[in-house]
Amino acid sequence: MSTYTAPSQDIHFVLNEIAGLGDVASLPGLEDATPDLVEAVVEEAGKLASDVLAPLNRSGDIENCHFENGVVRTPKGSKDAYRQFIEGGWNGVPFDPDFGGQGLPWLVSTAVSEIWNSANMAFSLCPLLTQGTIELLTTHGSEELQTTFLEKLISGEWNGTMNLTEPQAGTDLARIKSRAVRDGDHYRISGQKIFITYGEHDLTDNIIHMVLARLPDAPEGVKGISLFLVPKFLVNADGSLGERNDLKCVSIEHKLGINASPTAVMSYGDNDGAIGYLVGAENEGIKCMFTMMNNARLAVGLEGVAIAERAYQQARDYALERVQSRDASSNSPDAVTIIHHPDVKRMLLSMKSRTEAARALAYSAAGTLDAANRHPDDAKRASAQALLDLLIPVVKAWSTDIGIDVANTGVQVHGGMGYIEETGAAQHLRDARIASIYEGTNGIQAIDLIGRKVARENGETVSTLIADIRRFAPTTTNDDLAAIAERLETATNALEKATAWVVETFPTDPNAVLAGANSYLSLLGLTLGGWMMGRTAEISLNKLEMGQGDAAFYKAKIISARFFADQVLIEAASYHEKIVSGSVSITASDFSVS
Amino acid sequence: MSTYTAPSQDIHFVLNEIAGLGDVASLPGLEDATPDLVEAVVEEAGKLASDVLAPLNRSGDIENCHFENGVVRTPKGSKDAYRQFIEGGWNGVPFDPDFGGQGLPWLVSTAVSEIWNSANMAFSLCPLLTQGTIELLTTHGSEELQTTFLEKLISGEWNGTMNLTEPQAGTDLARIKSRAVRDGDHYRISGQKIFITYGEHDLTDNIIHMVLARLPDAPEGVKGISLFLVPKFLVNADGSLGERNDLKCVSIEHKLGINASPTAVMSYGDNDGAIGYLVGAENEGIKCMFTMMNNARLAVGLEGVAIAERAYQQARDYALERVQSRDASSNSPDAVTIIHHPDVKRMLLSMKSRTEAARALAYSAAGTLDAANRHPDDAKRASAQALLDLLIPVVKAWSTDIGIDVANTGVQVHGGMGYIEETGAAQHLRDARIASIYEGTNGIQAIDLIGRKVARENGETVSTLIADIRRFAPTTTNDDLAAIAERLETATNALEKATAWVVETFPTDPNAVLAGANSYLSLLGLTLGGWMMGRTAEISLNKLEMGQGDAAFYKAKIISARFFADQVLIEAASYHEKIVSGSVSITASDFSVS
Repeated sequence: MSTYTAPSQDIHFVLNEIAGLGDVASLPGLEDATPDLVEAVVEEAGKLASDVLAPLNRSGDIENCHFENGVVRTPKGSKDAYRQFIEGGWNGVPFDPDFGGQGLPWLVSTAVSEIWNSANMAFSLCPLLTQGTIELLTTHGSEELQTTFLEKLISGEWNGTMNLTEPQAGTDLARIKSRAVRDGDHYRISGQKIFITYGEHDLTDNIIHMVLARLPDAPEGVKGISLFLVPKFLVNADGSLGERNDLKCVSIEHKLGINASPTAVMSYGDNDGAIGYLVGAENEGIKCMFTMMNNARLAVGLEGVAIAERAYQQARDYALERVQSRDASSNSPDAVTIIHHPDVKRMLLSMKSRTEAARALAYSAAGTLDAANRHPDDAKRASAQALLDLLIPVVKAWSTDIGIDVANTGVQVHGGMGYIEETGAAQHLRDARIASIYEGTNGIQAIDLIGRKVARENGETVSTLIADIRRFAPTTTNDDLAAIAERLETATNALEKATAWVVETFPTDPNAVLAGANSYLSLLGLTLGGWMMGRTAEISLNKLEMGQGDAAFYKAKIISARFFADQVLIEAASYHEKIVSGSVSITASDFSVS
Repeated sequence: MSTYTAPSQDIHFVLNEIAGLGDVASLPGLEDATPDLVEAVVEEAGKLASDVLAPLNRSGDIENCHFENGVVRTPKGSKDAYRQFIEGGWNGVPFDPDFGGQGLPWLVSTAVSEIWNSANMAFSLCPLLTQGTIELLTTHGSEELQTTFLEKLISGEWNGTMNLTEPQAGTDLARIKSRAVRDGDHYRISGQKIFITYGEHDLTDNIIHMVLARLPDAPEGVKGISLFLVPKFLVNADGSLGERNDLKCVSIEHKLGINASPTAVMSYGDNDGAIGYLVGAENEGIKCMFTMMNNARLAVGLEGVAIAERAYQQARDYALERVQSRDASSNSPDAVTIIHHPDVKRMLLSMKSRTEAARALAYSAAGTLDAANRHPDDAKRASAQALLDLLIPVVKAWSTDIGIDVANTGVQVHGGMGYIEETGAAQHLRDARIASIYEGTNGIQAIDLIGRKVARENGETVSTLIADIRRFAPTTTNDDLAAIAERLETATNALEKATAWVVETFPTDPNAVLAGANSYLSLLGLTLGGWMMGRTAEISLNKLEMGQGDAAFYKAKIISARFFADQVLIEAASYHEKIVSGSVSITASDFSVS
């Protein structure tokens, strides 16, 4: 069975050297995030992950969730693990101490979340969805709702869920049909929701559903959708659990992966209508949802990083043990561990370097999120928010594509054993596969990026970012740094040209631009990843020159950055042409014939 | 449930226009392969595939194989489907009519195999492995063995298996430990074999195992391995089944996919030793295996094409039906079928164009195989063989990577439904995933290509091929053709430069070259794919200009070729640098630290 060890050294490197934990900890309200505390937090999280969550990853996948008569039973061990998780206070890491949270930066919460997701992605979905519920409630909930629900959600005693999707309304929330009618101080909700993660289970006493529904007099489309809090059990005035609400789990899905997490079909209001409480104003449900979207998409992007790390650890450990074939550069006839073979090294470096680049980018976005939330300077807060809005679709889509790709390579490193489920490598691929789909498909991320984030603001934020990237110009004779800088410049030039084309073309020919949306997102991801790895190499070289820290660690970082530049970032060169030329064939196609 | 319709129009286009069925049918012994006959064969295969095999694809995946006390039961319907398959004579399409085969070209057999694999890959593995057994027996078996076994293998009454792998010997067959001792006119075999596809099942009365084992006095390494035919039931002089041989299935694997096909752990000789008959000379087992390797690798490459086609059909059909979101280029607020959205078109074109390129390449290799086997001119036969040897690793690795990639994109087109197993899109990804692993991992293919096929012969065959590709120079003012030709030239230049570097560097620094092996294979695959699609576009344009045939079909072919050039082939430009620079970081890495 594969084990998991939190990559603490990598995590601290990115927190401190790339994502600016020092700056984040100087933001108002985040002063507790001292280096010592953060180190202790990461260490403790690593222990819980290795000892409790990781061992359940495979058994939970095999056992799956059980559904019978509206009741869902999670796999063996989940309940006890969840109890340990919330007893450790892990459910409330980034939340308001007034409601029992730890009050730590999102940046630190991001590092900790990576660890949970590496250890057990299916398990980690429960706190992830609760996190979204807490944010919605914190930002838009009435004081009464906050008083009743927030503390128990932050402690994890209760969990939260997101009820957006209906069979006819996935990406297109305008088509939501679930109904809400006013009934005194509350509403009565009815309708069917699908793909509800942890919509029903046995980990908590109550489940707090956040449900999008339409009032009878609501306008058409997305501007007629309201958000409701619909608890599984109503809550009495004294906080104790009251009557069961009129909602039930109809079935759970058979999925490709994340099998230890129940994905429920929920039915609301089969009898008198489920009692729901309005969150935010009527008809502003979608607007409310947007406030938690950056965080949720960051969290899903991080799943890509987390699965990639787990898959990498497993493949590396296998390659260090598996003996097969002689070394082509040696005269010895003896077989060697496969990690000696160049093509295996290539696969592992591809896994490692992309994981590192994606981690650096995700953590940077998390640091930017903290600045956008808390920077005392209005202008700094605004520019951080603009940068965050630009980064989020890239973190979500680019990192989850990397998660799939790295897990896929992990299977390959194992050869035939990779295809056997007992090995566990295949599970990583199955689990990783969802992350490019939910929380807005990666196609939607690309459209969001190119339309809403780049074209609409005439490429302003991306231009500022490009100027920042161009400031990476190491004055060194080091071959690796020079090679990385050169590749990064080529990529940045391509990004600049592509951005100009997007801004110019979008107003008159949106479909031509949308045909290149996916490639544009890839180009931005590659360039940002190259920049992150370039900075990584530069910092590592400095450390080595100054004789500071773990030399082997820094040397490996430079090799990884060089690989990323030569083998991954290099692809950026063709992307400007890819983007510009894409529309020719794509727009012409109609698929009326096969 | 997803259906499957054989893409007859595409298949006939590639057979006739790209892979040269006319030339193949003029080879001695293949004269029966007239256009009419081939059309009828493809049509009948399509019917059996759609009506019988495809409907079992999903049910077989769910039900899986059952193992109890050494007995394997295949999923419901498999037995009846297999009966229909062999009654139709489909098991013997390319084999000697003297033993009951149909005597058709490998090119035609390849088209038919694509159809089986699209319909039901797990099912199709049974005839695929039998095919290998038949080839080994035909080429290396004694007359007595041929008389006893060939007819029943060709009819499919009995099936054949390949027993190479042992726990410590996968890629590295030198490490095989299974033993064979002489015992009169036969041998006694003992040892354990793993990953034996259809090693035990209930489809046939007898199972003919081809087993690699080592004689007591054999030399070390691969030159001390012999090949034995070991039947499950011994065969009496009159051809009836005799005693059960001393071999058994110990267990079957739980796999990521191809679940309807049993993958057995086999144990030989737990009692007196399994009776086996030598095939070929003693200690020449590996050499014998090589004779069927090109065919087997072509067959696996074709699995990539087949799954890609199936995944494409399913994704296209879903996109034609699923209504979601408005058209960005229209003023209407109404939601449209998602096939109108540029990013969905991009995904479908990516699936379609790569499937077409991989099909054209695989069929071309099959046509070359027929020429290598049967051309009356010695020199032509030799040059066909050299070309085939070069093409095979590309067909195997490039097409199976495409299979995975296309199936992965197919999941994405389905959005959330893609992750639900009932949809069937995820199964294609799970099934496709094995093809890059078995029959020599894709890493091994790349090493075989760059070492044994390119470096060892100083790039001679690839240079001939490059000269052929350069002959594609359409004299036309058509924009699409011109754009395709330009991209192809860039790719060909990169291939030429990379080849020169490989030839020059391999003798002194094999590991540097091996570090770039995967990229070199990708570059050759891309270039060949671009050439195939260029020829496709050129032929299609001619047909359109002459007003021949189905205009919509040919227009779609040109769009697909243009997409391939602009979005796929374009990547070839960076490959020379990728190959050359790869060794810098790869060779430096050691993974002693994470």
